[in-house]
Amino acid sequence: MFEFAELGNKISRQEFDEREPELHAGLLAVQRKLRDANFSVVVIVSGVEGAGKGSVVSLLHKWMDPRGLTTAAFWDETDEERQRPRYWRFWRAMPPKGEIGIMFGSWYTQPIVDYALKHAKRSEFDQALERVRHFEDTLVDDGTLIIKLWFHLSKKAQQKHLAKEAKEKNIAVSPFTKAYARSYDRFALVSERALRKTDVRHAPWHIIDASNARYRDMKTGEIVLERVTQRMSEGVIASGRKGVSAASLHKADEPAVLSTVPLDLKFDEIRYKTRLKKYQRELYQLAWKAHQRHIDTVAVFEGWDAAGKGGIIRRVTQALDARLYRVISIAAPTDEEKAQHYLWRFWRHIPRDGYHTFYDRSWYGRVLVERVEGFAQPQEWQRAYQEINSFEEQLVEHGTLVLKFWIHIDPDEQLRRFRERETVEWKRHKITDEDWRNRERWADYELAVSDMMSRTSTEIAPWSLIPGNDKRYARIEVIKMFVERLEQALS
Amino acid sequence: MFEFAELGNKISRQEFDEREPELHAGLLAVQRKLRDANFSVVVIVSGVEGAGKGSVVSLLHKWMDPRGLTTAAFWDETDEERQRPRYWRFWRAMPPKGEIGIMFGSWYTQPIVDYALKHAKRSEFDQALERVRHFEDTLVDDGTLIIKLWFHLSKKAQQKHLAKEAKEKNIAVSPFTKAYARSYDRFALVSERALRKTDVRHAPWHIIDASNARYRDMKTGEIVLERVTQRMSEGVIASGRKGVSAASLHKADEPAVLSTVPLDLKFDEIRYKTRLKKYQRELYQLAWKAHQRHIDTVAVFEGWDAAGKGGIIRRVTQALDARLYRVISIAAPTDEEKAQHYLWRFWRHIPRDGYHTFYDRSWYGRVLVERVEGFAQPQEWQRAYQEINSFEEQLVEHGTLVLKFWIHIDPDEQLRRFRERETVEWKRHKITDEDWRNRERWADYELAVSDMMSRTSTEIAPWSLIPGNDKRYARIEVIKMFVERLEQALS
Repeated sequence: MFEFAELGNKISRQEFDEREPELHAGLLAVQRKLRDANFSVVVIVSGVEGAGKGSVVSLLHKWMDPRGLTTAAFWDETDEERQRPRYWRFWRAMPPKGEIGIMFGSWYTQPIVDYALKHAKRSEFDQALERVRHFEDTLVDDGTLIIKLWFHLSKKAQQKHLAKEAKEKNIAVSPFTKAYARSYDRFALVSERALRKTDVRHAPWHIIDASNARYRDMKTGEIVLERVTQRMSEGVIASGRKGVSAASLHKADEPAVLSTVPLDLKFDEIRYKTRLKKYQRELYQLAWKAHQRHIDTVAVFEGWDAAGKGGIIRRVTQALDARLYRVISIAAPTDEEKAQHYLWRFWRHIPRDGYHTFYDRSWYGRVLVERVEGFAQPQEWQRAYQEINSFEEQLVEHGTLVLKFWIHIDPDEQLRRFRERETVEWKRHKITDEDWRNRERWADYELAVSDMMSRTSTEIAPWSLIPGNDKRYARIEVIKMFVERLEQALS
Repeated sequence: MFEFAELGNKISRQEFDEREPELHAGLLAVQRKLRDANFSVVVIVSGVEGAGKGSVVSLLHKWMDPRGLTTAAFWDETDEERQRPRYWRFWRAMPPKGEIGIMFGSWYTQPIVDYALKHAKRSEFDQALERVRHFEDTLVDDGTLIIKLWFHLSKKAQQKHLAKEAKEKNIAVSPFTKAYARSYDRFALVSERALRKTDVRHAPWHIIDASNARYRDMKTGEIVLERVTQRMSEGVIASGRKGVSAASLHKADEPAVLSTVPLDLKFDEIRYKTRLKKYQRELYQLAWKAHQRHIDTVAVFEGWDAAGKGGIIRRVTQALDARLYRVISIAAPTDEEKAQHYLWRFWRHIPRDGYHTFYDRSWYGRVLVERVEGFAQPQEWQRAYQEINSFEEQLVEHGTLVLKFWIHIDPDEQLRRFRERETVEWKRHKITDEDWRNRERWADYELAVSDMMSRTSTEIAPWSLIPGNDKRYARIEVIKMFVERLEQALS
């Protein structure tokens, strides 16, 4: 596919100088309009060595306003990045809505380099590209405009450019640059496969002939201008991929999964205390072992209002050294969070190797409260199942232990607890009008929970349904499960 | 001072059980009120090994709502932290207003350990404590409540506790714990000095006898409850240290420093182009050398509206590899930023070793626009000079090159540029009503700039006054200065 880019396109200096002011003004104008738009723009700058990617990035910075424009480079991985799933560093670099993020290097770099240098198998390469595709779908569905630029040079042109660049800057051609040049053919082959497999209608590749710098620059500016202008004209509401039908959800006429939970299970005080002590002691030691072995845990706590999530989390954290865990309570998003994909606020708290993050409510809010209350559009919460599965898959692939608990109680028990909260002084703050409103929609939530279970209880990250009518039983059950799963992960 | 804590205070189980519910309810209530308050609470948990600091932290988590409560531990430094000034990791962990942050380990740990283990001299220890004191002043002045808890055990009690803990948890006493116990006396001596030197009225130490766990826990809860309640009663406005008089600013009756800038300096097109090319080439190479040598740069660009800051920054960044720098344009703070000390939003972008951050406007906004427009109270902007000097000192101590440019133009030149902006299509967005309003307050700003220069142009981080009437001259001047300072730092 690259040969079609080698057309020897050129632009004279005169022509460039004539056309530049208009392009410059156009980019500034569209960037200004973008500020109020409900989407972000991601520009991927990639291509062969020597094609002048750095110059292109500089030029984009020259043409546009630095406010609302950032460049992220992914060459220099820190340990905070290495100790988390691969895509954490990309999520971390995502521009907020209304802004442009230039990705100098991107999620394409490592798959291409690994496969080209034969550090990865073809199947692994294809799998990595599948992940890329899914990641981009996720962004595009959220409204993000992805502009993918590939700067191409023929082998001959590349050699010429690298030599010229070295001379101009009065430096030796850097060693890795030389290595890349030597393996030009291999890289071309691999890159072509990468581009072909990820060249989709909603996130197409633009291959730009980089042999003439002025042509390359003008073309880049024009593509960015055109794509942003076009996306802007599609309006704020029409976000996401076109023609993507929402997953058709069949009515849950099978018995709801929640009705299978044996809510009559109980522990008396003595049994509870003995077991709690036993499991907390075990957990304490396992958590230290996990720390030494660099295993991290992400635990999700969901359940009905007043199901006792907080009490359970506290029994778990009591057993742990405070240095090893963090509890993230999900409340209203901050404005920095609102300006991002809904998964961003969860990605940002993913623990490093050896640590634990407990989410008191989680990304499942998307398919629970946001679905039931209509905060998310049907297509948004329907595609969320896949997005969530992919997210958790990435955690597990990285070596993270993913635990998901649904704490179940029945409506009677909830009512009893609501009433108790209203009467006990220091529990009063726990009960709000919202709780009563949610309670009225029990059936809707039950359907949402059923759908969630059947779609996101995966082999690698299964849901644990915890009978919660007896608080003691629930606490023991969760902490026991935690101990068992950690033991398993450590063996 | 510690011996006075060894009073053998005890609380019986019965008494504890009787008093706990009230304390629990009180903490929850005050935490709820805190949510709407305009300050944050920092609880420092420190003390001797074996005193049960971890249990105390767990208990605070048990007593309080996890929403609005986080614990930060500082034992495990990442490279992203190591590659920045020491306090970056503390700034990063600061709780937002309305929340409580427990510091398990803190800015005290390293100074104490370093000096106790004789890795640091006494003068270095005292200097580190001076930094601690200034840091805490900075937080308190911003309204933050700092509760400093020191858990004390006698040598005998410590040995008993460590042995008991090891037995209970069925683990060997960890090697570093043993080492600490061996050097009990030395640590006691050093800690005492640390506490004495930082025990100030607005951030006093609470020494808690930890030999009886119930006493320790009850006392901790009571202190936290009492201090937060008391701080709350002081109201939202009365922030900061009491009795701290604002630095008295004498009228700038000496000739304004800005009048000394030779604004008639000019470069013609040819001279400009030749020099620009020369310095950009030099800068490119120096930046790579700096990267290899792990030297980072923080450059601040301030100046009148339309002084040409953006154009200058672009000429500098053009010369750099896009992977090595970031431009931070200071606009309105996000709500996460608003909930923190004003320096927090600048700390968060401090580069790692080997990288450059350019601030297009900066922390100097505090003593410029915030002063002139009245967004900051007089005591706020007056104490900012010291806060800023300390901030920059920390950067320089870490090895960061700090460059500060004031781009100066005169009122006539500004008027000319404003008019040009109004007429040239792609420059029109650059001029707003606010610019015209600011212009009317030229004299106020001039006074603020004068004060800023005289108070923050330090030996380690001097201001460079750049004549800006001729854009070409200004650009060359800045890039040349950058080259010279980098060369100097590299030699």
